[in-house]
Amino acid sequence: MTGERGTIAVLGCGLIGQSWSALFTAHGYNVVGWDPASISQSAIEQAIAKSRAQIRMQGTDRNVGSFRLAQTPEAAVVDAFWIQENAPESVPVKIELYGRVETAASPDAVIASSTSSLTWSQLATSLNHSGRFITAHPFNPPHIMPLVEIYAANDVMQKKAISFYRGLGREPVLLSRDAVGHIANRLASALWREAVNIVAENIADVSAVDAALVHGPGLRWSVIGSHMAYHLGGGPGGIEHYLKHLGPSQERRWATLGTPKLTPDVCSRLVAGVMDEANGRSIAELEEERDRSLLQVLAARGGRMA
Amino acid sequence: MTGERGTIAVLGCGLIGQSWSALFTAHGYNVVGWDPASISQSAIEQAIAKSRAQIRMQGTDRNVGSFRLAQTPEAAVVDAFWIQENAPESVPVKIELYGRVETAASPDAVIASSTSSLTWSQLATSLNHSGRFITAHPFNPPHIMPLVEIYAANDVMQKKAISFYRGLGREPVLLSRDAVGHIANRLASALWREAVNIVAENIADVSAVDAALVHGPGLRWSVIGSHMAYHLGGGPGGIEHYLKHLGPSQERRWATLGTPKLTPDVCSRLVAGVMDEANGRSIAELEEERDRSLLQVLAARGGRMA
Repeated sequence: MTGERGTIAVLGCGLIGQSWSALFTAHGYNVVGWDPASISQSAIEQAIAKSRAQIRMQGTDRNVGSFRLAQTPEAAVVDAFWIQENAPESVPVKIELYGRVETAASPDAVIASSTSSLTWSQLATSLNHSGRFITAHPFNPPHIMPLVEIYAANDVMQKKAISFYRGLGREPVLLSRDAVGHIANRLASALWREAVNIVAENIADVSAVDAALVHGPGLRWSVIGSHMAYHLGGGPGGIEHYLKHLGPSQERRWATLGTPKLTPDVCSRLVAGVMDEANGRSIAELEEERDRSLLQVLAARGGRMA
Repeated sequence: MTGERGTIAVLGCGLIGQSWSALFTAHGYNVVGWDPASISQSAIEQAIAKSRAQIRMQGTDRNVGSFRLAQTPEAAVVDAFWIQENAPESVPVKIELYGRVETAASPDAVIASSTSSLTWSQLATSLNHSGRFITAHPFNPPHIMPLVEIYAANDVMQKKAISFYRGLGREPVLLSRDAVGHIANRLASALWREAVNIVAENIADVSAVDAALVHGPGLRWSVIGSHMAYHLGGGPGGIEHYLKHLGPSQERRWATLGTPKLTPDVCSRLVAGVMDEANGRSIAELEEERDRSLLQVLAARGGRMA
């Protein structure tokens, strides 16, 4: 059977759109894509095929959905029950696009934005029916990384979104209110600030910082969250004991963390350090290593505690 | 053959000391422990046996070293070529201990402190021969987590420490200068500050924050460091392109991150949220889940990029 699960529109077929398309077709949906650039259907199909080979490693590529390119966003959405928008991170660009698709789409269709840096409030007000609009931010690449961060303004859409992305083997997480950077990029940004500071303050070099993360807290956070880690760090008394006895020392620690500036000097040390760490490997080679390792970890980790 | 690789003294046989002892004996060293509390040899041996079963899952428990308790720190160090100190995080306590062992130990023996919150400079000045003193901070539990953060004041000791911990299957990382929290706990503290802020600002609840981390950036950081992730986030132009084009937006993002206070209200919401996430599982059960998942991820990840 082909695409018996319905049609999804993918607006914006860059890296994120292609990755979503691979995931959607692997789960038996037909995808109709649209992109303002003159990207060819065969180029997208090639990218999708490559990603689907990775999805098969996760054992989730059971179905066959089709992919075709439409000439206009209106044509892309006309049969869709779900619209995943991956346009550039610009409020006017996205709003213009919503204006075009809102009337062409079925009134029941969900419009989901993959935006990483904009918020629901900045985008939703432009729609005539904002209740069907959500932000659904994937972590790159979405066909491998499980996280999808969701903000929906009402219970019905929250449930619909959770069910849809969970059905794709993703791990949807709900925001209580919309915020710049959602959750994950706020955490990533907070960590990177200190990672930059450690280099700027000459405490350690770039590759030492990355190695410490990968073999220490990063490894731990692949199976257990930050709050839960402090629960276990508190011994038999857990987080309550931790906060009571070590809370003040954490506040003192926070006060010692840096607020670096990305000055030309700091930037050139970051670039040199990353080049040193890359050790001749190209971006494409590094991405391939990353994806291969991610798939191995995903296949293995089981029983994670979130 | 038993312990043909030499003798290591473990000063302080709490959780960290027990875990180190399991790792050391699994690599063929004889361990002589000392602890000021009246902990029995058989209790420690039981803990070591449990940890060694986990080490065998990593395929690194090839040798057999013995463990025995000494009555005094002086007796513990007398035959040791390496002294791993895990005393309470108190400068006077550690300094008093160094005074007792420095003269009893062989002049060649290395004194390595597992301290997480104190620095080399705070501790080294008390020794007559500070050149042989290093900080070697493991990430808990040290028989599972690969990271050991090292600060040594001279090249010879740096090389000695790298070689020693690498021989134990660990991933030693060198600091360029000593700093509170070394690298990993600075990163962990920076991330947790924002994780607390997200709860305090009501952007998401505790379990959503933890799930976002585990299925998003935490998963990614188990195979690739933070600096390298931004290198790949820069597209074909890498970190240089990223810093040039998105550096300013990162600085703006940093400015929006929170500086929460651990007020009674925030603390009670953290406690309630963690209890909700634990969902009835005890600390011991959660630790067992964590360790099992960590061992699975460690066995799987291979080809990591640090």
